[in-house]
Amino acid sequence: MKFNEEQVISEISSIFAPLNKVNPRVIIGIGDDAAVIETDQRSVITTDMAIEDVHFKREWSSAYEIGSKITVANLADVYAMGADPRYLVVALTLTGNEEIDWIKELARGIADTAAKFEAVVVGGDLSRADKIMISMTAVGSSRLHISRGGARVGDYIYVSALPGWSRAGFEILSKKLPDSPAFAHALSQFKSPQLDPAVMRSFKSAHALCDVSDSLIVQAKQISAASLVGFEIDPKRIEKCEGFADLAGVAATIGCDVWDLVLGGGEDHVLLATGSNLPGICIGKVVIGRGVEVLEMKKAPDTWRHFN
Amino acid sequence: MKFNEEQVISEISSIFAPLNKVNPRVIIGIGDDAAVIETDQRSVITTDMAIEDVHFKREWSSAYEIGSKITVANLADVYAMGADPRYLVVALTLTGNEEIDWIKELARGIADTAAKFEAVVVGGDLSRADKIMISMTAVGSSRLHISRGGARVGDYIYVSALPGWSRAGFEILSKKLPDSPAFAHALSQFKSPQLDPAVMRSFKSAHALCDVSDSLIVQAKQISAASLVGFEIDPKRIEKCEGFADLAGVAATIGCDVWDLVLGGGEDHVLLATGSNLPGICIGKVVIGRGVEVLEMKKAPDTWRHFN
Repeated sequence: MKFNEEQVISEISSIFAPLNKVNPRVIIGIGDDAAVIETDQRSVITTDMAIEDVHFKREWSSAYEIGSKITVANLADVYAMGADPRYLVVALTLTGNEEIDWIKELARGIADTAAKFEAVVVGGDLSRADKIMISMTAVGSSRLHISRGGARVGDYIYVSALPGWSRAGFEILSKKLPDSPAFAHALSQFKSPQLDPAVMRSFKSAHALCDVSDSLIVQAKQISAASLVGFEIDPKRIEKCEGFADLAGVAATIGCDVWDLVLGGGEDHVLLATGSNLPGICIGKVVIGRGVEVLEMKKAPDTWRHFN
Repeated sequence: MKFNEEQVISEISSIFAPLNKVNPRVIIGIGDDAAVIETDQRSVITTDMAIEDVHFKREWSSAYEIGSKITVANLADVYAMGADPRYLVVALTLTGNEEIDWIKELARGIADTAAKFEAVVVGGDLSRADKIMISMTAVGSSRLHISRGGARVGDYIYVSALPGWSRAGFEILSKKLPDSPAFAHALSQFKSPQLDPAVMRSFKSAHALCDVSDSLIVQAKQISAASLVGFEIDPKRIEKCEGFADLAGVAATIGCDVWDLVLGGGEDHVLLATGSNLPGICIGKVVIGRGVEVLEMKKAPDTWRHFN
């Protein structure tokens, strides 16, 4: 054991507690049986966890990146309902072999990412386990909500950014490929996906919305099934979008099919939406029918799996 | 692997989703990126996890008991703020070696216990890990809130029930003592502590309130420190209360000091309150000063530790 529980709680509290004090919505923050928070008439709530050697590896990602990534995963689910993130609670297990600085960097990655999206960590729990596990719950304010069931025939289909970079990063790390400047964006999107809060907030007029954490093709099927409509995705539209040529270049270098990355890659946490005049990249349209057709695509893309 | 992820999600959803449908406060339940729920102007939020071989052992407790216990731990923290539980989300890791019936019993233990306290599970996350871990977040409605900082000199000190039974059960299991009818209550309180919702709700006029999860003495010190007052606990008042003679009998049989159980035992999840004319057991009074004095007690009680 490189630390004791009181020391860890004290160090973590010193990162999160001051952010509670300055947030007017937090009535009672970290340190009591529960936090007391201001909530609107409707809230959204979601939970997502990250487990060592399943969702991340310590030799691949810094503590800061690991903290940031699980925070982004939770916040993206809030935006994916058309809501605004407000509060987070974090349950953390440690093995006892971490350096105290590593734990503080993990907390800073969580705190900084939350702050970027105007959310705040108001509570947590700490325990020992054989692996590091971060289980997070996000609560957001929901003036409106956008489910997966609202897509209408005639809607256009949009993604908030090109997906596939995270899976490309995962493949680079898995295959232990030598470092290259061309890999920088893919690696950073895998280790710590960056989302733009303004973009995430700009999909509130969507008819149907979800985040692409399990791959574009899987989540398109979910909207299609929930909305009782068909999805027609046009690869030519995707090919024209910014960054596609770069991603195709990386895919060729690392021996992957670029469409496996774009359609089958996971953990990008970009938004998938239907509607009209939405921001982002228009990739197709909603049609009468069921299921997802990718025009002129000869094979189904390989979809994302975790390490296990 | 005795099951696949889709099967587990389907089985668990079939337990929780119907309870979402009939709850008028749940606008969108399990199955989208996040749940949409009705919330009051102020909410409380808390998170608490249970990890195999740290907080529970599969050979000691049934799946139903494990699910119920972690639910009680979360709900007690909501009541400990003077709030009413409403919603739960659950992150669960499985090893892959559990029987599907074991997993369903775990979910039923959570669902039934939540229902008893008028709370409902509205979301979750599932992953693989080397150990079973249940990380839960509870959200409650907070018309008022009672912190640890409100105790006043002249208040009486109350507990909602006699603590110590859970630790007694833990000692019986740890020492592998032969089964005895006298142990039944201790074992059941350790495996699956029972709380009475009516009693938990009846402390809303308390000045200071917390739940006794880390032992009476530790939590009394926390209220004392947060309220800048002294606690004077009178063992004679505790000795007179219902069940004390039974607990003392069990303590003698298993070779424990009954005061280590009552003052130092953890995980009972009874409430500790200060105020006047409160229900439960009056165990002392709030005085000028700092810290906790147990009258005529010669030694400090051994306080609760988890397995690790």
